[in-house]
Amino acid sequence: MTNDTICALATPTGGALAVIRISGSRTFDILSAISSLSANVQANTIHYTHIVNADGKTIDEVLISIFRSPRSYTGDDSAEISCHGSSYIAKTILNLLVNAGCRLAQPGEFTQRAFLNGKMDLSQAEAVADLIASRNSASHQLAISQLKGHFSSELAALRDKLLHLTTLLELELDFSDHEELEFADRSEILDLAQKISQRVQRLTKSFEVGQAIKEGIPVAIVGKTNVGKSTLLNCLLHDERAIVSDIHGTTRDTIEDTIEIQGVCFRIIDTAGLRTTSDEIENIGIQRTYQAIDKARIVVWLIDKEPDEIEVKTMKEKCSGKSLIIVRNKADIITHEEKSIASINISAKLGENISMLEDAIYRETGIGEINPDEIIVTNTRHLEALIQAQDHLQRVLEAIQVGLSGDLIAEDLRLVLTSIGEITGGTITSQETLNNIFSHFCIGK
Amino acid sequence: MTNDTICALATPTGGALAVIRISGSRTFDILSAISSLSANVQANTIHYTHIVNADGKTIDEVLISIFRSPRSYTGDDSAEISCHGSSYIAKTILNLLVNAGCRLAQPGEFTQRAFLNGKMDLSQAEAVADLIASRNSASHQLAISQLKGHFSSELAALRDKLLHLTTLLELELDFSDHEELEFADRSEILDLAQKISQRVQRLTKSFEVGQAIKEGIPVAIVGKTNVGKSTLLNCLLHDERAIVSDIHGTTRDTIEDTIEIQGVCFRIIDTAGLRTTSDEIENIGIQRTYQAIDKARIVVWLIDKEPDEIEVKTMKEKCSGKSLIIVRNKADIITHEEKSIASINISAKLGENISMLEDAIYRETGIGEINPDEIIVTNTRHLEALIQAQDHLQRVLEAIQVGLSGDLIAEDLRLVLTSIGEITGGTITSQETLNNIFSHFCIGK
Repeated sequence: MTNDTICALATPTGGALAVIRISGSRTFDILSAISSLSANVQANTIHYTHIVNADGKTIDEVLISIFRSPRSYTGDDSAEISCHGSSYIAKTILNLLVNAGCRLAQPGEFTQRAFLNGKMDLSQAEAVADLIASRNSASHQLAISQLKGHFSSELAALRDKLLHLTTLLELELDFSDHEELEFADRSEILDLAQKISQRVQRLTKSFEVGQAIKEGIPVAIVGKTNVGKSTLLNCLLHDERAIVSDIHGTTRDTIEDTIEIQGVCFRIIDTAGLRTTSDEIENIGIQRTYQAIDKARIVVWLIDKEPDEIEVKTMKEKCSGKSLIIVRNKADIITHEEKSIASINISAKLGENISMLEDAIYRETGIGEINPDEIIVTNTRHLEALIQAQDHLQRVLEAIQVGLSGDLIAEDLRLVLTSIGEITGGTITSQETLNNIFSHFCIGK
Repeated sequence: MTNDTICALATPTGGALAVIRISGSRTFDILSAISSLSANVQANTIHYTHIVNADGKTIDEVLISIFRSPRSYTGDDSAEISCHGSSYIAKTILNLLVNAGCRLAQPGEFTQRAFLNGKMDLSQAEAVADLIASRNSASHQLAISQLKGHFSSELAALRDKLLHLTTLLELELDFSDHEELEFADRSEILDLAQKISQRVQRLTKSFEVGQAIKEGIPVAIVGKTNVGKSTLLNCLLHDERAIVSDIHGTTRDTIEDTIEIQGVCFRIIDTAGLRTTSDEIENIGIQRTYQAIDKARIVVWLIDKEPDEIEVKTMKEKCSGKSLIIVRNKADIITHEEKSIASINISAKLGENISMLEDAIYRETGIGEINPDEIIVTNTRHLEALIQAQDHLQRVLEAIQVGLSGDLIAEDLRLVLTSIGEITGGTITSQETLNNIFSHFCIGK
């Protein structure tokens, strides 16, 4: 158990309640010094008490929740003080705790202790931060899956396969002069190495989707002025805004111009709109729109009349490698030609066919086709470790193919294992890596 | 127990944790529908569980605290879900609770239930809101004292005295034709009524101090330009700012230009400063300064040379009824005349004698002389009730003095009791009064 006892505010103040977390071997001694709580309180119980300062003045009537090592979040003795949500009270209680022997916790220090005490691996610890930051169903599901250890299990399976490969190569080496023994031949070893490589590559590839889910998928709505872009944007924003505003305290988390479709976040990139008052100004408008397209992954081209061939050709060229959805607006007032380049007809004003457009946007992400059990990498640190692992694996594959002996391959195989191990963090994780990870956490977690 | 089960977010999201409160007879049934919690869980225990949606997807790993009627905040069965501090997660759990049969709580509805279930009286319920809003030691102590029921006890003592007075008057009436019996004579009755009146008046009078403590005491720092007002302001602000910024999440509560001296909040009123470039402009400056003085309770007049007689006379006239502290600045660079109108010499630049000035400001409030056990009224609703009580009491006093008979006094005495009773709220509190009080609470309290 960690001797150094830490404390921190775990919720913002300004609500009805605030929660202060304490963890470390002296937790209960310190609490009994500032309240009527007995240091022998039972685990997993809640106690009503008063926090009292050195002059005997009551600071607050509080509830204290008791957690005993090892059955706590950090693995150490821990407690949570639920006080009234005034910043003055929270500040005063924290000061009392510090005077009684606590230290103010660093960002993420509670979770770091959970990792150091073996309560979770590094990828799970990182999932805690992702979970807190999650703003929609898709990013939330990725974080929950990682927190539950699905990614860790996948890595453990990879590790088993790598160890099996190592064993096969060692056996080949040890018994290479015993001609009477049968070993896995090189093609079998190569097959196993290739399978491992494919799994690592699939994980690496999943990062693109993972990152898109985590950060939001950039969507540009482009089109000429007065074609109805703002009306469409308001139309797309409307529902989500209403839901968010029902809940007290969520407003600060909303970001301007993001929409959510089937639990996936899309970041709308504003475009100035193409103006046609003069050729010169039109060119500026086009430049702006092209800049927006560059940043987008999906482009919604809103039109109210059929574009000419040059316009279509230019737009398709600019959107090469991206998803382009051509949408015809103003279905309520304009009788469109029957044959259209657009795939969807909408009326942004009346909200007609908006859900059809949303489905099309969602479909372009390909997220719907992902197997719900598939592991998706969302973390840049994990991606880097996987890319390193893949580099070493490539060398292993080449070495097997050219028939190098097992002892020459062993070093690269060891490096693959190290790279994979870095993700979950073993005994070998450097303090620098830990600092990098946990300094991005909020205080109190 | 209340059948209608309510839920609300009790902390802002955006921290490590968020807490969701649930209260009402169906609390445990509803919780067991969305988690693995048994509906028979024991009171005052904490349970680790997963909140799961209708598709069986885990929404979060949470801790649930169990409170059973009547030993809960509201008096009903209650629980608190401590989840990860993501607004998405909090929103999703609230939606699940609502789908399982909860209703989103109104502001202050938990505390209103505590009042309706007899867990606290109205003045204590109002102290909960004051406690959450408290930003400094003085306002916090007033709220804690009121929450602990000190004000309620004072009112109960007043009520006892009023009932005693009623009894004396009734006795006088009932036995007025039995000449052989001895009663309290009118002077004794008058004495008792006067004592009651004095206590009510003392409470009414305390409101000025109470309001000042709760809202902050307005202080104007006035003086000519370049006399060092800004330097002094920064000097006064410095310490408190530093303390506040140590604690995560408190920043949003700080208000520009308030300082705290010995736990009391002072609101600094900015003054433009008197300019002397021309008579005309000087007049504008003077006007501005006088406006600031009008709003202040304490005026700090900062000078760097002795003002002339007219200036002194004008300032004293303008500050009539307020506290005026004359302070001579720039002790570090100016050799001042020995005889000065100023009571304090400071150097704002070097921070010299600033604590002396702070002491002087604090002394002018008179708060230091208040007996710590003295009841101080802070709430406008209470003040109004006390003023009403005092009006009726005045009529009682007059009636006793002119020798009206007891039955003619009884009605006014009853009205005094009703007015006093309104503060703590009895069976007679109207729904409108309750709505007025609790609608100012935050949601989740």
